[in-house]
Amino acid sequence: MSESNHVFLKALKREPVPYTPVWMMRQAGRYLPEYNATRARAGSFMGLCKNPDFCTEVTLQPLDRYPLDAAILFSDILTIPDAMGLELTFSEGEGPRFCHPLQDEASILKTKAPDPDCLKFVMDAVSMIRKALQNRVPLIGFSGSPFTLACYMIEGRGNTDFCLARSLLYRRPDLMHYLLQVNTEAITTYLQGQISCGAQAIMIFDTWGGLLTEPNYLTFSLAYLHKIIQAVQSHENTSKIPIILYTKGGGAWLEAMSTTGADCLGLDWTLPLSQARKRVGHQVALQGNLDPMVLLSSPTIIESHVSNILAEFGIGNGHIFNLGHGIDRHTPPEHAAVLIDAVHRLSIPYHHKT
Amino acid sequence: MSESNHVFLKALKREPVPYTPVWMMRQAGRYLPEYNATRARAGSFMGLCKNPDFCTEVTLQPLDRYPLDAAILFSDILTIPDAMGLELTFSEGEGPRFCHPLQDEASILKTKAPDPDCLKFVMDAVSMIRKALQNRVPLIGFSGSPFTLACYMIEGRGNTDFCLARSLLYRRPDLMHYLLQVNTEAITTYLQGQISCGAQAIMIFDTWGGLLTEPNYLTFSLAYLHKIIQAVQSHENTSKIPIILYTKGGGAWLEAMSTTGADCLGLDWTLPLSQARKRVGHQVALQGNLDPMVLLSSPTIIESHVSNILAEFGIGNGHIFNLGHGIDRHTPPEHAAVLIDAVHRLSIPYHHKT
Repeated sequence: MSESNHVFLKALKREPVPYTPVWMMRQAGRYLPEYNATRARAGSFMGLCKNPDFCTEVTLQPLDRYPLDAAILFSDILTIPDAMGLELTFSEGEGPRFCHPLQDEASILKTKAPDPDCLKFVMDAVSMIRKALQNRVPLIGFSGSPFTLACYMIEGRGNTDFCLARSLLYRRPDLMHYLLQVNTEAITTYLQGQISCGAQAIMIFDTWGGLLTEPNYLTFSLAYLHKIIQAVQSHENTSKIPIILYTKGGGAWLEAMSTTGADCLGLDWTLPLSQARKRVGHQVALQGNLDPMVLLSSPTIIESHVSNILAEFGIGNGHIFNLGHGIDRHTPPEHAAVLIDAVHRLSIPYHHKT
Repeated sequence: MSESNHVFLKALKREPVPYTPVWMMRQAGRYLPEYNATRARAGSFMGLCKNPDFCTEVTLQPLDRYPLDAAILFSDILTIPDAMGLELTFSEGEGPRFCHPLQDEASILKTKAPDPDCLKFVMDAVSMIRKALQNRVPLIGFSGSPFTLACYMIEGRGNTDFCLARSLLYRRPDLMHYLLQVNTEAITTYLQGQISCGAQAIMIFDTWGGLLTEPNYLTFSLAYLHKIIQAVQSHENTSKIPIILYTKGGGAWLEAMSTTGADCLGLDWTLPLSQARKRVGHQVALQGNLDPMVLLSSPTIIESHVSNILAEFGIGNGHIFNLGHGIDRHTPPEHAAVLIDAVHRLSIPYHHKT
């Protein structure tokens, strides 16, 4: 298949495709025994992330099992703050932690975009994966959003409400803007680097933007996402690369998100796809939006939910099937196969012959 | 002040009031040193909850500090499953845990509404608090929603995504409906009991309904909330008691929530109040919606956010000022005073003389 013929890339541009392409957020992950085996060999999650050979291996694992329409770089959204010196660690069952979170004004003002050498392992992984893919499917690069990175950098760990970060917005908006600008520059360089190394599409994960009030989302998250998208799209080497923007819990703000220049909006499962298409489908492609918990049910139930989502989007171009969030670690791998087969098979009637 | 003249109760009925009433979710809580002192004397959180004298003491503490317009029963949303035999414990920094979560079909099918004697301590607390209040302000009784209780009962503890509960919806909707019906009956009896003992308004906390897809929210959360509200409102002894319904993250579903018969909808901070009023303000009163993190800033910033929210609602009846979620434990108590004063002072121009 020639590069420009990839169904996934065509769907991102809302061009006609013979069936709805599908990939799964976190498709290289703990639900796959072969992933767990590689991770065990790597010794730790960070050992896995920082080794391009291992990254290539796990990125390709789900493609060897399933006829997915895209690969996504295996990495973590917190590589940038790690490279800034915050030192990322993962302990079992605990999630991410920074050894040096940003706990005061001085530590925030010392923050600067990382030395690109400290993120060379990611660029090497992109190059190596792209080569290993041999153009089977397109490769998606990614980053966390400036606000989402700031949440972890300030809090030092994941939690449910990120009170320290959210209260900094009100206490010291100047410091928050300083940090967001640093993150924005770092993320722009990071994404441009991934594209130079072969990433054929980009996804930006704004996992925690949905925790904000509407004015704060627009000011502290979306404005910086807009800057990144504009920077990527205005550079001659990266301007043609489609960008997917995902704000978890951002269903109320799709119209604003669609004005950033993003080619596609990622949707969680809380908003019916028909509503999203009606609101912004004339401007952007849409990616989503199956509740990942559906994959813990049965083949029959999975197929009926796939059928519902395809009907929600309806006939037309610009839909990429995905989960509304990462695949759950308890998903039986054979259920992912059911999903992908159902999307490919049941979506054909929704596409005109090309 | 005669009972029917309470500003809070009038606002719930969208009647004219001289100023906007205000109370704070979790106003009797860890941000108050006197609360922490009582909790220490009680020995444990459950020791506090189960002792009506202590409950009365902490319920009245914020009223002694601030000119709040309502009191809310001090209790926990998980008293009902505890009384069902799941055995609730709180360990420091860990949040709630059940010793006997519902981990299989048999344990779910054994669940039944608790013996009212096991919740007598709550009824005693309501009676005692109502007496101690001497009609200073109205007393709000409360419960968690059927779905929110089910989340904790199935998961056994709080977490960010309640995967076990959410996947049960898809795997075994029959079991989920069974459990939700048991919870609905228990909650109805619980709220009717609180009203009999003197609660003058009711709030139902659907803390986790916002994790659902729209069809699942309507089927697995709102339908049962509707049953509870109808049961309370159709009983001659409880029909006049106003009901506040709060689904965190439920901003997309306000229209559906407003058809349950609830007198007022509680709002988190993610939706601008002007939008909520435009959508459902002709049917229900609205309670909210300050981001609790604002209280960690400064008096000037707090006052400006109060001013914004009052302007968002605008001139007219049917607004109760509140936070969009519980007050944070790190809130300086003097900042709560600033909030309450600002609401009372700045809201006068928004109300016609009565």
